[in-house]
Amino acid sequence: MTRIAIVYHSGYGHTARMARSVAEGAGAGAQLLAISAEGELPADAWAELDEAAAIIFGCPTTMGGPSWQFKRFADASSKVWAAGRWKDKLAAGFTNSASINGDKASTIAYLITLAMQHGMLWVGTGLMPANTKAAQRNDVNWLAGFAGALAQSPADAAPEEMFPGDLETARLFGARVAEQARRLTRA
Amino acid sequence: MTRIAIVYHSGYGHTARMARSVAEGAGAGAQLLAISAEGELPADAWAELDEAAAIIFGCPTTMGGPSWQFKRFADASSKVWAAGRWKDKLAAGFTNSASINGDKASTIAYLITLAMQHGMLWVGTGLMPANTKAAQRNDVNWLAGFAGALAQSPADAAPEEMFPGDLETARLFGARVAEQARRLTRA
Amino acid sequence: MTRIAIVYHSGYGHTARMARSVAEGAGAGAQLLAISAEGELPADAWAELDEAAAIIFGCPTTMGGPSWQFKRFADASSKVWAAGRWKDKLAAGFTNSASINGDKASTIAYLITLAMQHGMLWVGTGLMPANTKAAQRNDVNWLAGFAGALAQSPADAAPEEMFPGDLETARLFGARVAEQARRLTRA
Amino acid sequence: MTRIAIVYHSGYGHTARMARSVAEGAGAGAQLLAISAEGELPADAWAELDEAAAIIFGCPTTMGGPSWQFKRFADASSKVWAAGRWKDKLAAGFTNSASINGDKASTIAYLITLAMQHGMLWVGTGLMPANTKAAQRNDVNWLAGFAGALAQSPADAAPEEMFPGDLETARLFGARVAEQARRLTRA
Repeated sequence: MTRIAIVYHSGYGHTARMARSVAEGAGAGAQLLAISAEGELPADAWAELDEAAAIIFGCPTTMGGPSWQFKRFADASSKVWAAGRWKDKLAAGFTNSASINGDKASTIAYLITLAMQHGMLWVGTGLMPANTKAAQRNDVNWLAGFAGALAQSPADAAPEEMFPGDLETARLFGARVAEQARRLTRA
Repeated sequence: MTRIAIVYHSGYGHTARMARSVAEGAGAGAQLLAISAEGELPADAWAELDEAAAIIFGCPTTMGGPSWQFKRFADASSKVWAAGRWKDKLAAGFTNSASINGDKASTIAYLITLAMQHGMLWVGTGLMPANTKAAQRNDVNWLAGFAGALAQSPADAAPEEMFPGDLETARLFGARVAEQARRLTRA
Repeated sequence: MTRIAIVYHSGYGHTARMARSVAEGAGAGAQLLAISAEGELPADAWAELDEAAAIIFGCPTTMGGPSWQFKRFADASSKVWAAGRWKDKLAAGFTNSASINGDKASTIAYLITLAMQHGMLWVGTGLMPANTKAAQRNDVNWLAGFAGALAQSPADAAPEEMFPGDLETARLFGARVAEQARRLTRA
Repeated sequence: MTRIAIVYHSGYGHTARMARSVAEGAGAGAQLLAISAEGELPADAWAELDEAAAIIFGCPTTMGGPSWQFKRFADASSKVWAAGRWKDKLAAGFTNSASINGDKASTIAYLITLAMQHGMLWVGTGLMPANTKAAQRNDVNWLAGFAGALAQSPADAAPEEMFPGDLETARLFGARVAEQARRLTRA
């Protein structure tokens, strides 16, 4: 079974819900690892990251980039980098924010930059966009994220009000990461 | 009268229509300068750019970045850069593409990078996003662009079918650039 | 006197030294505001930011982006954003890291993204690069930063061992921001 | 034999020389495909791209991004994208420019964006930086590129004057891409 670690920070529960959809898509080998409100991760979660074939990074987009709690986790990964422990693993990323565009691309770009410093391989959604006049809000990849999975939840929407299409997109994204992780790890 | 040059490339007419909205917002000093299908700009348009207090760059987002025609124009501006002729001018940018997100942010980031090499100042939309549950497609800045003005036109929509809200956003953006250009140029 | 606030985080003292060079260049109106090791800023520093004509953001580049402490400060500025209190101010940024390139561009890009959400104007170094065969490490803008001022200090170099050329670049950058702030605030 | 296509544009020969180093590292399966001065690629080169297990994109950084000729090639790949013909292939990128930093990161970021739209996987250099006080210009990855391979050639340096360390970095990068391509394609 290919182990897929999903390490994420969620401020209000939306990104956590998205993370669960990603995990559902990734299947039996998926493990959810939550970064705390102070940007910390337990030691056993760090150990889990070392063991995983793929690491999926997730966080909300706040003030134009990854939440500071996620960045604190990323900064703490400098020791892992120095030891090369994530090198050659597969990496991927997802984010949620309140606005339609609103700098989600900046967050995904950062997650790629982090993964590249670690010497990981990056995989995106592999999804085509729903971008004709007939497109509906709940179509798969309506938000049109390629480098990472995107969700958009209005500023006054509770996690349970997230768009089903965004969650389905997250699920398909999780399935894709798991598929590519298997491709990379088969003998 | 503060001169505002809007230099743009449009492949199918959508970005051209957006450019006209930007010009309308920028007011009497606005001048539209079109880059050709081969990425070329007439000599008098280059001269106009030298005279302008502000230059607004516009192009479609194609395959994740500015259209090649716009990039050809940007590459041709290396002579202007070497002479420092756009230094200290105000700059801004806008883009249109078929998908909701779909790498419009990548295009705007490039336009900023270009302006910074030229030693220009950059101004964005200055607009708040429409991002609550009550938000409508034609609200101002529904797409939530901050660093530049964004428009999204479905892949099968003609220029005349562009969203009025995106065009109004472009108009307000043009007005803002003109206002800031006046601020920079008053004695 | 035009007030220029330089708000920065420094982990080991290099970015702090760079900030002092920026302040020296910015002149009499410059004020240095330090973000703490926990990513916090005192209330009077927040008030100073509200009063400034220009805000210069500075932080080290850690793991491919702004230090988490800076990002925590940026996230805390969401209240300022909602109230529009930094709108129309001038903004600029600088960063230091150990490697020659090493994702300093990612940090500067984030600082621009933050400023754009706030509706600020952005100004870069306005400096030409020193990029011929005759170029020396301590030439002005040897690192060739346009969108923001860059410094590079080897991983085993103390703050007092920083390159004089990088500090002179920072000083000239500070002078430029102050000059453009005066341009924006006169009459 | 795993086929590695290296598709590149070179304006003055530096990027072409870098491409040859990448090809040398990639080994027997490597094929060099040159984009013309008009941004065009022969039909058989397009066919070669379809057959490759990995595609390595290369171009100079001009005016803050990929050369327009490369962008024209990228725009022409929209048909390939619509048909999904590069999906699941491995991708990587490299660039050369005259300045030390000078927006090479912007070019690499664009190449990633392009690859992600195509649904490809991305691999970087996997190299640690040479960033201590003892570091020398010709050390491997002195420029510290992670997401892609970087070369810097002074504005007045001929291709034959390129830094051996940058070319060795390119060679190791080519070897890494080939190694990861084999990992992805083995039964």
